[in-house]
Amino acid sequence: MKPVKVGICGLGTVGSGSFNILLNNAEEITRRVGRSIVIEQIGARRDNDTCDISGINITRDIFDVVNNPEIDIVLELIGGTTIAKKLVLTAIENGKHVVTANKALIAEHGNEIFAKAQEKGVMVAFEAAVAGGIPIIKTLREGLSANRIEWLAGIINGTGNFILTEMSEKKRNFDDVLAEAQALGYAEADPTFDVEGIDAAHKLTILASIAFGIPLQFEKTYTEGISRITAEDVAFAGQLGYAIKHLGIARRTKQGIELRVHPTLISKKQLLANVNGVMNAIMVQGDVVGPTLTYGAGAGALPTGSSVVADVIDVARTLTADPTNRVPHLAFQANALSDVEILPVEEIECGFFLNMTIQDRAGVLANITQILSLNDISIESLIQQEREGSDLVPLVVMTHDVKERNMNAAISAIEALPDVAGTVQRIRVENLA
Amino acid sequence: MKPVKVGICGLGTVGSGSFNILLNNAEEITRRVGRSIVIEQIGARRDNDTCDISGINITRDIFDVVNNPEIDIVLELIGGTTIAKKLVLTAIENGKHVVTANKALIAEHGNEIFAKAQEKGVMVAFEAAVAGGIPIIKTLREGLSANRIEWLAGIINGTGNFILTEMSEKKRNFDDVLAEAQALGYAEADPTFDVEGIDAAHKLTILASIAFGIPLQFEKTYTEGISRITAEDVAFAGQLGYAIKHLGIARRTKQGIELRVHPTLISKKQLLANVNGVMNAIMVQGDVVGPTLTYGAGAGALPTGSSVVADVIDVARTLTADPTNRVPHLAFQANALSDVEILPVEEIECGFFLNMTIQDRAGVLANITQILSLNDISIESLIQQEREGSDLVPLVVMTHDVKERNMNAAISAIEALPDVAGTVQRIRVENLA
Repeated sequence: MKPVKVGICGLGTVGSGSFNILLNNAEEITRRVGRSIVIEQIGARRDNDTCDISGINITRDIFDVVNNPEIDIVLELIGGTTIAKKLVLTAIENGKHVVTANKALIAEHGNEIFAKAQEKGVMVAFEAAVAGGIPIIKTLREGLSANRIEWLAGIINGTGNFILTEMSEKKRNFDDVLAEAQALGYAEADPTFDVEGIDAAHKLTILASIAFGIPLQFEKTYTEGISRITAEDVAFAGQLGYAIKHLGIARRTKQGIELRVHPTLISKKQLLANVNGVMNAIMVQGDVVGPTLTYGAGAGALPTGSSVVADVIDVARTLTADPTNRVPHLAFQANALSDVEILPVEEIECGFFLNMTIQDRAGVLANITQILSLNDISIESLIQQEREGSDLVPLVVMTHDVKERNMNAAISAIEALPDVAGTVQRIRVENLA
Repeated sequence: MKPVKVGICGLGTVGSGSFNILLNNAEEITRRVGRSIVIEQIGARRDNDTCDISGINITRDIFDVVNNPEIDIVLELIGGTTIAKKLVLTAIENGKHVVTANKALIAEHGNEIFAKAQEKGVMVAFEAAVAGGIPIIKTLREGLSANRIEWLAGIINGTGNFILTEMSEKKRNFDDVLAEAQALGYAEADPTFDVEGIDAAHKLTILASIAFGIPLQFEKTYTEGISRITAEDVAFAGQLGYAIKHLGIARRTKQGIELRVHPTLISKKQLLANVNGVMNAIMVQGDVVGPTLTYGAGAGALPTGSSVVADVIDVARTLTADPTNRVPHLAFQANALSDVEILPVEEIECGFFLNMTIQDRAGVLANITQILSLNDISIESLIQQEREGSDLVPLVVMTHDVKERNMNAAISAIEALPDVAGTVQRIRVENLA
């Protein structure tokens, strides 16, 4: 099949991330889609150092892109609601599909844009507009489509969550952490959009509409920021077993729908209370699935680009009436599966937790640590405990990563020691990083 | 558009859940799909008390269903790999789309089944085969399609997680908790599939294939269960800051792919370590999105049915060449959006955390609690602390749920008290249940 041609408008954070993913993961993407996706043109006021644009048609006028007859899909990544709106409507008018990361545009003008898109028979995809790399739009719209959604609650602004996390973990004040967040680039020079909840309200507006099947109603969202939260509030909440998180909450009640963004105390036992730093997460309560949670990076060039490019792939699949162009059963085209070797377990490396019973006698520990050392196994931590009235005591050893083959050899040798009773219990350790 | 007709084979746990969702959420589903989905026939050896099958064509021979020319989509919910395989292949041969929740069937015979489906131009959807209600197949296959997946690690067997959670929280032994799990219906009379990791290995096989684009290779998955984990292991791991979880891990390395199911120590700081009881969760590390996690119910009639019916909806959308039959922008058909009222914030009910500064004087607390009581606000907890060298002290009150309107009135009255200094800090509290 012939390649799908995209035009990118805007080469800032999200634009550059999307560009680099389309370029660097082109092979993986083609294996998935069954045809290649190429960047036909870029419209940007200036270049971006992180992007190697050599050989790509670049224009300083973004409207060139939406008027380029070669282009199938326009990526609106300029932000804002004035020019962006005009750009998207022109693209739709020209029969092009649109992918956007623009939460303000969708929350404030989505009803008009979607009506126009439907009239023209094109798609406007906006996964990246909510919670960056987390595919929450797809999850709500398709993954949980059998449900009547009852409510959702999300940490959907990374800047705010970073500030509250620092306030909680380091007992710092709001102003102090905000200044650091600005220095780190997590917060804008004018932080109003993030800390006063407007950004979160844009995202909540979109989520609520998709959850309940209601028009976008940004202006009706109750919005309260985190700027008045004090270190003392955080400390008292902690004493009561609660974390303070800035949540967007949408709930269906008999009286109507609640749409609200505000600082919220939630029990520390909730997974959501343990979502820290710039990460985002959304809980969704469906009538049949019960509670669910999705977690991931809510911002950044590559995570947000991950959602932009996933949307491009979704749209690309629809650009043919060929029914075999569905999502493949195993994600990749059947003729593009790769025959990579599955490693035998002996070749796998991980840490190990060893629990054994030894004679409480001089030299035993030295023998065991020598066996480990001979097998290139280094120890991370160790627990040796007395056991009253017994000369058999437990010994727990936690090791750094090592090949299973080495560990097998070490365990055999340890079990052969006369001062080790019975077998050695072995459980693998993973750092998941 | 004319209704989509499904035939259900099997009316056990998942069959009954799927049946009840299709019936009870029919209106919501039609609003999403733009056409109705009707149950044309059920094939089941016996009825199920939880299903009102009045008026539905029921047969005792499941092969009647796959041979019924009226049926568009067959739901294979009988389980097992012998009859189920024959049933699915016959359905495909007859040109019917298939939705299945059968992890063993897909993990062991998926390559053959998908090849046949591709040959016949039909879809075989299997979201419910992995992690029940969590849309992890869709997340991996579509939501994260821009990524080169690096690794994934999941708690994908609820029975095993229930046992390990109980062992950890209540310092109980494996055998003891297994007996309870069997009594509660979480574990089968023969628990081998769950506790020895075979069920998890089936699911991991499927996830790995979708993550990396490799054929299904169940027989190469290293599988180790939790039956030899002791209460002592759990306690020592806890001392070192680790939880023991039964994980399925798939990782891409330079040498090849790791595919393994085994008990694993992970840091208690990981979200995954805080996934307890029968719940499931999967971490996926993509090269551009970074770490993600999805969490939800991994089993049960309705959660698993949630995934079965989501698949039915996905398939139903493909049953027409009409391009407007795409997933609607706002999840529901544009002409099916509802005009539900958005509640003003005064009408919203939640708990409140109040933080104020009061004179350390007799009667002040009585005045405040009386004001709360007059406004129908009941107190859940309270912190009053001395502050050395000052007669102004902090008072923190946490309330049960109450309408914002009442809280506004109470706060105005409290702030008017001469013994209350400055304003009352008010933060909302949510139990997310």
